[in-house]
Amino acid sequence: MAQTLTEFDTIAAISTPIGEGGISIVRMSGEDAVKIANQVFKGDNLTKAASHTIHYGHIIDPTNKEVIDEVMVSVMLAPKTFTRENIVEINCHGGIVVTNRILQLLLKTGARMADPGEFTKRAFVNGRIDLTQAESVMDVVRAKTDRARQVAEKQLEGGLLEKIQGMRQEILNVLANVEVNIDYPEYDADTVTAKQMIATSKTVISEIDDLLKTAAEGTALRNGLATAIIGQPNVGKSSLLNYLTKSDTAIVTDVAGTTRDTLEEYVSVEGVPLKLIDTAGIRDTDNKVEKIGVERSRKALAKADLVLLLFDSSKPLTAEDDALIAATNDKKRIVLLNKTDLGQKVTVEEIKQLTGSKVIAISVLQQKNLDQLKQAIKELFFNGIENSNDQVLVTNQRQSGLLEKAKTQLNEVIKALEIDVPIDIAQIDFNGAWDTLGEITGESSPDELVNQLFNQFCLGK
Amino acid sequence: MAQTLTEFDTIAAISTPIGEGGISIVRMSGEDAVKIANQVFKGDNLTKAASHTIHYGHIIDPTNKEVIDEVMVSVMLAPKTFTRENIVEINCHGGIVVTNRILQLLLKTGARMADPGEFTKRAFVNGRIDLTQAESVMDVVRAKTDRARQVAEKQLEGGLLEKIQGMRQEILNVLANVEVNIDYPEYDADTVTAKQMIATSKTVISEIDDLLKTAAEGTALRNGLATAIIGQPNVGKSSLLNYLTKSDTAIVTDVAGTTRDTLEEYVSVEGVPLKLIDTAGIRDTDNKVEKIGVERSRKALAKADLVLLLFDSSKPLTAEDDALIAATNDKKRIVLLNKTDLGQKVTVEEIKQLTGSKVIAISVLQQKNLDQLKQAIKELFFNGIENSNDQVLVTNQRQSGLLEKAKTQLNEVIKALEIDVPIDIAQIDFNGAWDTLGEITGESSPDELVNQLFNQFCLGK
Repeated sequence: MAQTLTEFDTIAAISTPIGEGGISIVRMSGEDAVKIANQVFKGDNLTKAASHTIHYGHIIDPTNKEVIDEVMVSVMLAPKTFTRENIVEINCHGGIVVTNRILQLLLKTGARMADPGEFTKRAFVNGRIDLTQAESVMDVVRAKTDRARQVAEKQLEGGLLEKIQGMRQEILNVLANVEVNIDYPEYDADTVTAKQMIATSKTVISEIDDLLKTAAEGTALRNGLATAIIGQPNVGKSSLLNYLTKSDTAIVTDVAGTTRDTLEEYVSVEGVPLKLIDTAGIRDTDNKVEKIGVERSRKALAKADLVLLLFDSSKPLTAEDDALIAATNDKKRIVLLNKTDLGQKVTVEEIKQLTGSKVIAISVLQQKNLDQLKQAIKELFFNGIENSNDQVLVTNQRQSGLLEKAKTQLNEVIKALEIDVPIDIAQIDFNGAWDTLGEITGESSPDELVNQLFNQFCLGK
Repeated sequence: MAQTLTEFDTIAAISTPIGEGGISIVRMSGEDAVKIANQVFKGDNLTKAASHTIHYGHIIDPTNKEVIDEVMVSVMLAPKTFTRENIVEINCHGGIVVTNRILQLLLKTGARMADPGEFTKRAFVNGRIDLTQAESVMDVVRAKTDRARQVAEKQLEGGLLEKIQGMRQEILNVLANVEVNIDYPEYDADTVTAKQMIATSKTVISEIDDLLKTAAEGTALRNGLATAIIGQPNVGKSSLLNYLTKSDTAIVTDVAGTTRDTLEEYVSVEGVPLKLIDTAGIRDTDNKVEKIGVERSRKALAKADLVLLLFDSSKPLTAEDDALIAATNDKKRIVLLNKTDLGQKVTVEEIKQLTGSKVIAISVLQQKNLDQLKQAIKELFFNGIENSNDQVLVTNQRQSGLLEKAKTQLNEVIKALEIDVPIDIAQIDFNGAWDTLGEITGESSPDELVNQLFNQFCLGK
């Protein structure tokens, strides 16, 4: 969808988080951004301002000369801006009423309210960034751990874009050779081309496989690994929860919007954000023996990527424990034998036999073997992935889904050529893989997909 | 405390509200702000940047060259800045982890974490603004309605400062004349001085009275008018609450910090923010007849500036209603006879007799007379105060307390001189009033008071 710079209307939005703070920013982008700002600004003449300069003054309602706020206005002129359009940023005193008032004034003066993600979308449509970079913008914003931020920054710098472009170039080279080979009839064009196509398909598939190996870590880093702590009452769920949420590891508590019900708790385990499921439930019920955990656990289980299943090491297993094992059999699971300080009625070996899962004997009370737990979580999800800063990771299902599709197409090419299907038939899937990889970067993405993608952004980005 | 510009260390803080948004700002102020920023910035050489310019680049951890984020850096050089010191603002991708990471890097590179309000405090200490303007900065941020914002902006422009300086000048003129009168022995110096002192005291007292008249509105606008809706179960409390919170008037819901228990609901009545007390209680209990409202109401009452007391017009008053009247007798109160659509077993006149309060017959269901209620709230608190944009209001108890003190001192002057106390004795209080007024603007405020005041600010302001 690489479009050239076209004329857009001027959009405006509050670009800082909503709330009370020192500074809020109301941002405009578009042809008339400077002109509109100048109409409500008392200070320098902004239309004569040099690019990338800051101007002190007041926002004034031109209809009644009322002072709305004392502000600093930044003028950045196209094309060297985030959107490649003219951008004006009004830094006002943070505060809900004043920030809204300035936004309303801009809307009245000729700007249009921006859609979610529309600033970044313009950066994409105007060719400054590709789709993977656009996605990484929100990944940076939403990063729950520093490792997640690192991976997003790498993608923002174009790490994934570069890899994808490399693969597309390899495919393109072969496609160009198809023509060359035809021009040199002294070769058996089809045979040569088929060999090249198979070789390149194999190379690209192997590159795709390397990327796909990173998808589990990338997605977990991006979204947080939904983690359920499961076990019978009094087995130590809330102690484990407290240990995780109160340990030294960075904790990010995320209040989505202002809805009070959607408070989510994250803990960082070796840089991986675990999104803890139903922590309120655990805090509420763990010590009330009358409530059997199984029923409540089922809901949490449905959402979980990872299950931490706790048993009481000092008591024989019960029918309820068996039920919990059965309920979690199809999940990635780590079994914890807690309360080893109180004796050992069940052994690690027995449980390993019963579950086929990694089993660790721990004592949350004595903080015993909890590092082993952390290591196990990391290994279960990120085996083989280097933890280096330079690692490019696939961070979402859109990207990994398209990589899978391209891989399938290239496998079809190989399969077809190996049974001597004519080149021009096999080439359909080869071209298809080239297109599919282009969808990842946005070079061949349909508009609806692009719109849908940016709609998930926050306002003002 | 008007100090000259002195050397301070360089402070840093996150200046935008914490949360996920398009942009966050990490701000630094101080001698070394530019130098520190330059050490972690890859892009232009910031130490050579002109003032009030914006620079694109990356924040890099110098120890391992890791890219922290893609940023825009604003450089503003002393003295034409918010603090009158060098200021650097780093606009990064909004997001909790990335913003914290940049702040941590600045702290590691030589900046110190700013105290709450320290940027504004430096603006005050460096003489760019006075204390009333500093207070208005936070009033702008916290404004719950547009009218509250207007009043804060007026004070930010120096409206109150100007009035206070005017009064101090009048006092100073008399003090200067004391000397002049002594130099001209042909006059009876004491008599002339005493007359001037009395006249000026009276003038200034009248000016103080004008300001004090605005304090109720100013404080209510600033803090919100704590309002309790009181009445027996089923009298229509929750319907009234819903009407107020769902009407067209601007509603600001304020989540203080991230604590979930302190959610406060504000509604705007004619531009005045009502802070509604115990709305959760009302929503919970109104339709549960078994819970008598009286006990629960007492807690809400203790905090209330304004009571809206509801009775059921279609039923005779009960002993519980009498108890509610007794419990609210010492409050500013508006009595509402609800459910007039269901008939009238008690009349407005009867209730007026019983309570001595303003009584309005309403029907929340039929939305009858609710405008009268709004008008009554406004009148009860803001009688005689003009609603003009140019009105200077006293907006907090610190200001009104000091005005009261200055008034008392000036009254003492008058009383003393009228019973022929010697000038030099009476002059002590006259000088005292001059000092007291200076405390309002900060010209003669003790350091501890100033520190305490700025500690109430938010971080990064």
